[in-house]
This record gives sequence, structure tokens and C-alpha cells, in this order.
Amino acid sequence: MPLDATARGVYPIAPTPFQPDGRIDVDSIDRLTDFYVGCGATGLTVLGVMGEAPKLDHAEGIAVATRFIRRAGSLPVIVGVSAPGFAAMAGLARASMEAGAAGVMIAPPSTLRTDDQIATYYRQAAEAVGPDVPFVIQDYPLNFSVVMTPGVIRRIVQENPNCVMLKHEDWPGLEKISQLRAFEAEGAMRHISILCGNGGLFLDFECERGADGAMTGYAFPDMLVDVVRLAQAGERDAAHDLFDAHLPLLRYEQQPGVGLAIRKYVMARRGLIASDAQRKPAGGMSATARAEVAYLLARLARHDPRAAV
Amino acid sequence: MPLDATARGVYPIAPTPFQPDGRIDVDSIDRLTDFYVGCGATGLTVLGVMGEAPKLDHAEGIAVATRFIRRAGSLPVIVGVSAPGFAAMAGLARASMEAGAAGVMIAPPSTLRTDDQIATYYRQAAEAVGPDVPFVIQDYPLNFSVVMTPGVIRRIVQENPNCVMLKHEDWPGLEKISQLRAFEAEGAMRHISILCGNGGLFLDFECERGADGAMTGYAFPDMLVDVVRLAQAGERDAAHDLFDAHLPLLRYEQQPGVGLAIRKYVMARRGLIASDAQRKPAGGMSATARAEVAYLLARLARHDPRAAV
Amino acid sequence: MPLDATARGVYPIAPTPFQPDGRIDVDSIDRLTDFYVGCGATGLTVLGVMGEAPKLDHAEGIAVATRFIRRAGSLPVIVGVSAPGFAAMAGLARASMEAGAAGVMIAPPSTLRTDDQIATYYRQAAEAVGPDVPFVIQDYPLNFSVVMTPGVIRRIVQENPNCVMLKHEDWPGLEKISQLRAFEAEGAMRHISILCGNGGLFLDFECERGADGAMTGYAFPDMLVDVVRLAQAGERDAAHDLFDAHLPLLRYEQQPGVGLAIRKYVMARRGLIASDAQRKPAGGMSATARAEVAYLLARLARHDPRAAV
Amino acid sequence: MPLDATARGVYPIAPTPFQPDGRIDVDSIDRLTDFYVGCGATGLTVLGVMGEAPKLDHAEGIAVATRFIRRAGSLPVIVGVSAPGFAAMAGLARASMEAGAAGVMIAPPSTLRTDDQIATYYRQAAEAVGPDVPFVIQDYPLNFSVVMTPGVIRRIVQENPNCVMLKHEDWPGLEKISQLRAFEAEGAMRHISILCGNGGLFLDFECERGADGAMTGYAFPDMLVDVVRLAQAGERDAAHDLFDAHLPLLRYEQQPGVGLAIRKYVMARRGLIASDAQRKPAGGMSATARAEVAYLLARLARHDPRAAV
Repeated sequence: MPLDATARGVYPIAPTPFQPDGRIDVDSIDRLTDFYVGCGATGLTVLGVMGEAPKLDHAEGIAVATRFIRRAGSLPVIVGVSAPGFAAMAGLARASMEAGAAGVMIAPPSTLRTDDQIATYYRQAAEAVGPDVPFVIQDYPLNFSVVMTPGVIRRIVQENPNCVMLKHEDWPGLEKISQLRAFEAEGAMRHISILCGNGGLFLDFECERGADGAMTGYAFPDMLVDVVRLAQAGERDAAHDLFDAHLPLLRYEQQPGVGLAIRKYVMARRGLIASDAQRKPAGGMSATARAEVAYLLARLARHDPRAAV
Repeated sequence: MPLDATARGVYPIAPTPFQPDGRIDVDSIDRLTDFYVGCGATGLTVLGVMGEAPKLDHAEGIAVATRFIRRAGSLPVIVGVSAPGFAAMAGLARASMEAGAAGVMIAPPSTLRTDDQIATYYRQAAEAVGPDVPFVIQDYPLNFSVVMTPGVIRRIVQENPNCVMLKHEDWPGLEKISQLRAFEAEGAMRHISILCGNGGLFLDFECERGADGAMTGYAFPDMLVDVVRLAQAGERDAAHDLFDAHLPLLRYEQQPGVGLAIRKYVMARRGLIASDAQRKPAGGMSATARAEVAYLLARLARHDPRAAV
Repeated sequence: MPLDATARGVYPIAPTPFQPDGRIDVDSIDRLTDFYVGCGATGLTVLGVMGEAPKLDHAEGIAVATRFIRRAGSLPVIVGVSAPGFAAMAGLARASMEAGAAGVMIAPPSTLRTDDQIATYYRQAAEAVGPDVPFVIQDYPLNFSVVMTPGVIRRIVQENPNCVMLKHEDWPGLEKISQLRAFEAEGAMRHISILCGNGGLFLDFECERGADGAMTGYAFPDMLVDVVRLAQAGERDAAHDLFDAHLPLLRYEQQPGVGLAIRKYVMARRGLIASDAQRKPAGGMSATARAEVAYLLARLARHDPRAAV
Repeated sequence: MPLDATARGVYPIAPTPFQPDGRIDVDSIDRLTDFYVGCGATGLTVLGVMGEAPKLDHAEGIAVATRFIRRAGSLPVIVGVSAPGFAAMAGLARASMEAGAAGVMIAPPSTLRTDDQIATYYRQAAEAVGPDVPFVIQDYPLNFSVVMTPGVIRRIVQENPNCVMLKHEDWPGLEKISQLRAFEAEGAMRHISILCGNGGLFLDFECERGADGAMTGYAFPDMLVDVVRLAQAGERDAAHDLFDAHLPLLRYEQQPGVGLAIRKYVMARRGLIASDAQRKPAGGMSATARAEVAYLLARLARHDPRAAV
């Protein structure tokens, strides 16, 4: 089933599990995928920035994506295909779709500045992956240094029928969600799915602003699922209560540079992956940092027993 | 009393209060200063980025600094003197010290890249403000795009006897504090005061890592004072309990681009300043954003009655 | 006479002459201005980037501008008023216009990214300097990291009646000139003056593309005057012959970081200013570099006797 | 023969020839390589930025490099292996060396800032390609935004025995060459080969400063060969005479964004490649630009008959 603009819920950003010697840990891919399916995720995103995609070579990237896709069964899988050029992007997109991906995600190269440059890039990228391949815009200025106004996103959506989703991780970004939904309400833009990233740091309010859910990699995707469900069910206070209990840890994990180390460490402690190994270059955790995480987990466990690991 | 390397506690970053027509609101300067003094701040920093310093002309900057200094009485006041050139920096530093400032704060220009460029800049800046003027390094890569390693900070400290403090807002930054304190323990660097910024987002652990306190502008400086006091008294759980209660609002305020609008809005609601007006260019708050803040304040008030505003 | 959109010819970017001890050298301001007037410049621009404007404090900036303006007599003088905030910009603009400036020049802050941000900035800046003050857009992406499409420039022109000129130093930029002139030909944009910077590195073709002349600081402004005159008279080969003879030196001067040192050195050798001193931070010239310039001057002097210095 | 630190002369940066439909033009690879061999190039560099390497997928990159290597016979070929991650870099390096490459070239990712980050990156990259693979540092701040001091280059050279060459395209850069050669003279750094890029814009003086030659892609590599030969033979005036005759065109070609279009256009006119086609994204040339190039070629042909095309 190809991805479309009605997608909702939580698409965790899957880390790529490695063995301590740097080889890909395929057993952990399976275990992790089973966990995502079991906890209520509605989809999955692989080979994103936090999936260490740039550290895989072409064949490895396809192998990892394929393994996730097969194990995920009916769950739609989005594959990050951002690449320095369109040939590599198209190759990875084609291989992914053939392996059963639901769609692809495309981040802008950090050299883009003007509105025209951004729109042109997405037109060329959409053409490169092909008109039948649904794609997701990744809007993450803190990481890519590319700033997209709501007007530019609208332009991309209008110019490319295969654009079906926005991975929103602008910062600040709440008004951007409201603005895009206002465009839709006015009939000035067709509807797209909006899933939010940024580690979930503003997920509590993003849902209230009109986002369809989350696409991020926080080590407790099961919490993200619960918060989105509660928010969509109108149980505002309950959603915030759960979110707030996780916020101290979530914020700790959301540190650039060391965030992935923390995330993998917690996931390994939870038993979701066998090892917290990363390929180089990698940020590491000191003993003090590990102790701080243990302290945060212990505090969190008083509110959420899933944190008792 | 000039600032020295033994400084500890909380130096709030003071916003510059404006009237709705853009004029400086001197009455609010007084009221705000009285609040800082009353709530246990150990110092004060004015004309920082969040003090809208670049929006003041030279005479206004001196007038604002002077008003804060006079009202603060015995509380040491640090004045931000970052400027595009050394002539303006030296002029503002001189005027500030004559008005009674305890020291000055200097941020690096965003064009600096290499270790040598950074060290050279601070040598020239230290010479420009004069050897008798204590200064604070502002280390804020997210805002200035200048990355200082612990080794470069040590170099600045060693090369400039009048460097007495680091305003630490690197991100991630916990290991940096540990590294600098390790340099001191090894005798590889003389002691300096480290006060932490970044809106306080990691203050809970920063104190535990060896920071001397906070220098940031969160709308509840009284909370910062309490957290630092609890942490320094070894009451770890109590410090985290209070911090965690504030974290949802603190994180909301810490959004780039709209953070100052939120901060001034909350301070105005608390009665600390008369108006949340900013000079242009300014991020604004939508009605939805104001309602979100009201919701966060209401939730916070269940734990901290100071939020019942 | 206020600056208007009919301006043509050469507006040299004047360096600010300093004495070796860093004081402003007012006698050299007079001598340099007399030279500009004498060699056929049609205007003058002071306090630009290469005028070391950021190294002057507020009072010094006004004093330098005023001295140039008075000495220039009937020659229109444009004053660079770029500043970190609108209060300082407005203050400098007001003081300059009162001293007799013909208009002001405004560069964008390096944080601007999107088309909307750029257009908004110029609207606010135009309002800050006041509707009666003619202003020049400085479009210099290599230095400011802000990329303005022809469409954005058109938007600034259309939204601000007091925008009368573009200082064009985009790179590559020839097509941009053609595009802006095409807008004018189609009636899609009112006419503005376009003067070109970038040290003159493409002046030969810029004139042919429709530029009205040059606004740059090459140490032989008299050559710029001749090239523009020849180009406007349709003497294409003669314009290129003269330009090409200067190109080896011009290119040498156009090196970022040391360009101003070279420019001032040559101007001092020509007797246009008394000293090549710069205020800190300043790039310097090695003995080898000075010998290279001497060699270039000697080679140039075979074609242009003005280089025999 | 592996590349070593004694390399001298001219290693042209080879463009990748495409057919108008985007397929790789292998016949033009052969023709171009024959030309390089015939005109006196001492080596060859393929898959650089101007070789549109990022627009090739992995298999295409290897195929292009292999074709150049086989055709070049005894001429050493350097393959650009810069990649977003070490797995892809190592794979391309291995395949290139197996195909007969003499060494590889590595550019820094644009996220590097501090001296330590740069040195660490090159240590990890050197390890990734393997200790037996000679590598070239590409120092090109204008393109990569990474600034390497002479001290950092020395550190890379000292820490990695397989670092044998610097592709120097810093700007300004003459003093950097002098500084590195001074390190060698003082015994503070082992000797490396320095070949200069930047389109050759400063090649005249770079040779005099101690560079071993050029590594750049100007459409007249035969001129580069002559200038380096004349400079090394001490025929200073003759070297400058030839260089200066080419400078107007060379400078025109050296425009960011459209430079490659101009280069391929001239090379196609010279018959070195069949078509000036680029893969997307690509800067194009207007009819006016083509006429300007024709004019420059005609003027150049008066001094250098090779330009009569």
C-alpha cells in the first residue's frame, strides 16, 4: 500500500542497530520492528539521519531497508533517500519501492537558500524518484540550515502530486502547523499528512495544532503512541500528564551530537536492540552521562512502569 | 566590586522593558530589578541578546545599563558589550564600568571558525575593553555559529587574566563543564566561574557537573534560584522535582524566534514588567500560543503557586 | 540633491584613512575626496564594509561621513548605515542626511534566509530610516550569506518607493543584471540604478549587461571611470583593453581577508592616502606580498602610466 | 605507482562528459584523457566537485574512474572519494585502487568547525580508506565552509603517514603556501606536494610561493602546463605574460554556479568533449553568456592560437 496523505499516528524513526564491531545487527532489526508493531506504531521510517544512513554504503542501505520492510508486514515503511545527487537518490528509491516500501523521505541539501531554489530542488527530486513514488518533505532547519516558509511548503505540495506528507521539525514550529492547516481550510492547499519530529519535544501541542502524529525516534515510541492517541481522543490533560513525565528524559535525549548515543543506550537497556554501538563518527556517553540517564529513568518509572529497566 | 572568578548563584538575563510605543520603560526596569534582588539573585546581566541590546542605540544602551546598575544596589551587574567592532565595544565597556558595572560579557562574531581566530579575537577584545575590566565569555554556538572546544576556552582563560567567567550555553554541554572542571583539578587551567544559559534547559544536571549556577532569562528566575540552592545543598531530588515541574513551560519558552515573546508575556502576567512589547524585528504570539501558555501556567501552578498568575 | 534612480557612473567605495596609531586621518579624507572628484567619479560611498565602518564608534562614523560629504561638494555621497538594529541604523541615517548625504546603503543581516524574511527586513529598514531617505540595497551574498533572487529584489523595489539603487555584487551576477533589466523592459518593475561591486572583477561585462556603472573600491578608481565611460560610449574593445591590463592587479586585490590591506597599500603608494593603516582586526601584507604588488604595478605601468608609482 | 609527496606539474580536474540525454559519454572520456596526456599533464584527478561526482551513483562513479585510469596509461590518477560517510568512502577508495588509481582525494564535510574536529575527521577518513592508500587533503573553504589553518594541515600531515598532497584552494592562500613551506624548512613538518586549485586564479604567484603545480579544471589545461613549466624554469615574465592573456577568460570561468557550464562549453568548442551537457542540478548559459565567451576567446586567440576555436 503506497503512503498517502491520510497517514496518521506514529511512525518511529528507526535506528540502525549495529554490532559492537560495526556490522549490521539484523536480529535487532527484527526485534525492534516487532516492538514497533506491537506497541501500536502505524508505520515506520528507516534510513533517516538518526538511522545513521550516511554511514551505510549503497548495498547496506538497501539491505537494512529491505529487512525492516519484510519484518514490518502490513505496516507502511518510509525510506530516507536523501543523497548528494539524484542518481543515488533515484537508485535507492527504486530499490526501496521494489522491496516494498510505502514511500520515501527527502531532505534538502544544506546549500539551498531562496524559495525558488527549494521549490526547484523538490521538483527535480520528485522527478528523479518518479511520479509514482509518494514522498515526504523533511523540514528540519536546525540540522539542514534550510528554512522553508509555509508558502514554500505549499508550493512543493501543489507542484508535486506525489508529495503526501511533511515531516515537521522546524523550530519554532507550532504556528507553521496552524498556518498549513489554515491553507487547507481556505482551499489554498490540498491536504497532506503532518507528522512531527524534533525528538517529540513539542508533541503535546503539535497534536493540538493539527498534526497527525509523530515521526521521531525517542527511545519510548510507545509513549509517543499513547500521547497521540490521547490527544486525538480529546483527553488533553491525560496526554500532557504522560508527556510531562517523559519530558526530562526526552529533553536529555534531544541533545544534538550525543542524542543518538543516549537513545541507543536506552533502547538497549529496554532490550529493543542488543547493543548501543554506532559507526564512526559517533558521539559517546561518559559514565556520568549514563548515571544521569539511570537517574532520569528511575524518576520516570514512578509515573510510567515501562521505564523500570 | 568587580566581578571575579568566585561568582556563584543566579544572574538573570534581564529583558529590556519597552512601552507599547517602543520607548524604554524605566519604571519596569526598577520594578524588575527589585524583583531580582528580592528573589535571591546574586547578580544581574543586562544588554544580552535577550535584552534586545542590538535594538538600542549607543546612548540608549548606556542609559538602560545605568538604570539597572543604580537600582541593583550592591548586586553586581554584568553588561553585554558585544559589538561589530572594538571601538563600539570599548566605548560601551568604559561607559558601563564608569556607571558601576561589575564586568562585561563578550560574544564572538559569527565569522570566527578556527581555534586561532577565536583566541585572537578574545585577546583583541580583552585589550579593547582594558585589562582592568573583568569579562565573561559567551559560548553559545546555536546562536553565534562559533564552536569553542574546552581547549580553546582554556586558552582564552590563560591568555587573558581579566577573563573571570564562562556563560555556558553550548549544546550539548554537560561534558564540557566536566572537562573544564577537570582542567582545573589537574592544574591545567585556573578556576573560573561557570554560569549556564540556554534558558535553563539542562540546569538540573549542569549544577551537578560543577557549574556555579545560572545566567539565563527564564520568566521564573525565582525557580532558578531555588534549583541552584537545592542543588548546591545536595538536595538532588528536591531540585529535580521543582525543575521538572517547570520544564514543560521552560521548554516552551526556549523556542528560538518566539522565546522572548513568551518570556516577556509571562513576565508581564507576573507583574514584573508592565508590557510584553518588543522592538522590531520581533516574534509575536498568536492567541493560540497565549492560550497554550495559560494552560502550562495552570498546570505548573499545581506544583508551584508562583505560577498562579 | 537626494539620490535617485537615474544615478550613473562610478561611486568609489571610500576607505577610511587611519593614522598608524589608529586615529582617523582627516587630511587624507580630504586628499582622497579631491582625487575622487578630480578623476571623474560621479558620487561616493562611505562607511561600507571596506570603509571599516564596524570599527568606528557611532560618533566617529558620523564625523567621517560628514568630512567626506563636506569635501565632496556637489558630488552625492551615500553613507552605509547597516547596523545590528534599527535604532542605530535610524540614528546614523538621520545624522548622515542632516550632514548632507544623498542617500544611505543597507546590507541584510546574515541571519536572513527566506524571501519573506528578506522582504520584511527591507520594509522595516525602509521605515526605520524614513520614507524621505533614498536607500541602496547591498546584495553581496559572498560576504553576507544572504541570497536575493531577482524576484526578491523586485519585491523590495516595489514595496519601498525610497529604494533607488542596487549595489550589485552577487556572484555569478551577469544574468541577474539582465533579468532585472528585463523586468523593467516588461514593465514588471520600475527602473532603479544598478552599480556593481565585487572589486570590479566583472565590470567589463556588467556595463554591457545594463549596469549603470560601478560602486567598488579598487585602488584605481580612475580606471573604473574610464572603463565605464568607454563602455557607455560603445567603445567595447578599448574598454576591455584597459580593463584587461588592470585585471591581474584587480584580481590580486580582490582576495577576501587581505584585499583591503592591498588596496590601502596601493592607494598609499599612489599618494591618495598617507598611510595604509587599518584598525584591528586587520589582515596584513607580508614582504613577499608587497613585492608581488610591486611586480604587478610595474607590469601594469607598461599599459597604464598611472601605475608607475 | 602510488602517489607520493614528490608529485609535481599539472593534474587537471577532469569533468565527467555526459551525452545530452544524461548518459555517460565514454568516448569523450577517452578523447579527453588523450588530450591531457598529450598536452603534458603529469597526472589527472577524477570525480571531484567539478567532475559532478555527487551526481553519479556508486557503480557509475567506479565505471568513470576506471575508464579514465585505463586510458591514462602510466599517468597517475587521483580519485575523489568524498562521501557522506566512511562506508561509502572506503568502498569507493577500495574499488578505485583496485582499478589502478594512484591515490584518493578527501574533502571535509561542511559541518566541521574546530581544529580538533578537522583533525579527527581526517584520522578517521585515513583509517577508513586504509593505511596503504595515499590521500590528498582538499582545502576549499569557499565551497565547503571548513577553514583549515596551516597548523591543522600540519597536524593532519603528521598524524597520517598516507597524507601526501594538499589540493590548495583556500582564498586568500598565498601566505598559506609560504607558511607550509616554512614549516618544512624548519623541520616542523615533512614535505608534501602542494597543487593549487581555485580555477588557477592565482597560479602565477602560487608557483612562486612554492606550490608544485596546479590541480584545477580550467578549459585550457595546456596553458596551466605551460605556466607551471615556465615558472619552474624561472622564466617569470613569460609565465605571467601567458597567464595574463588567459586571465579574462579564466576569471569568467571561475564564477561559482555557472563555472562548470562555461568550462564544458569551451571544452566542447575545443573538441575535447562531444557535448557540454551536465546532469541536474546544473547552471546553464544564456545566449548572451555564450557570446561573451566567444568574445573572450577571440581576444585570447590574438595571444594564444589555441583559443581560435
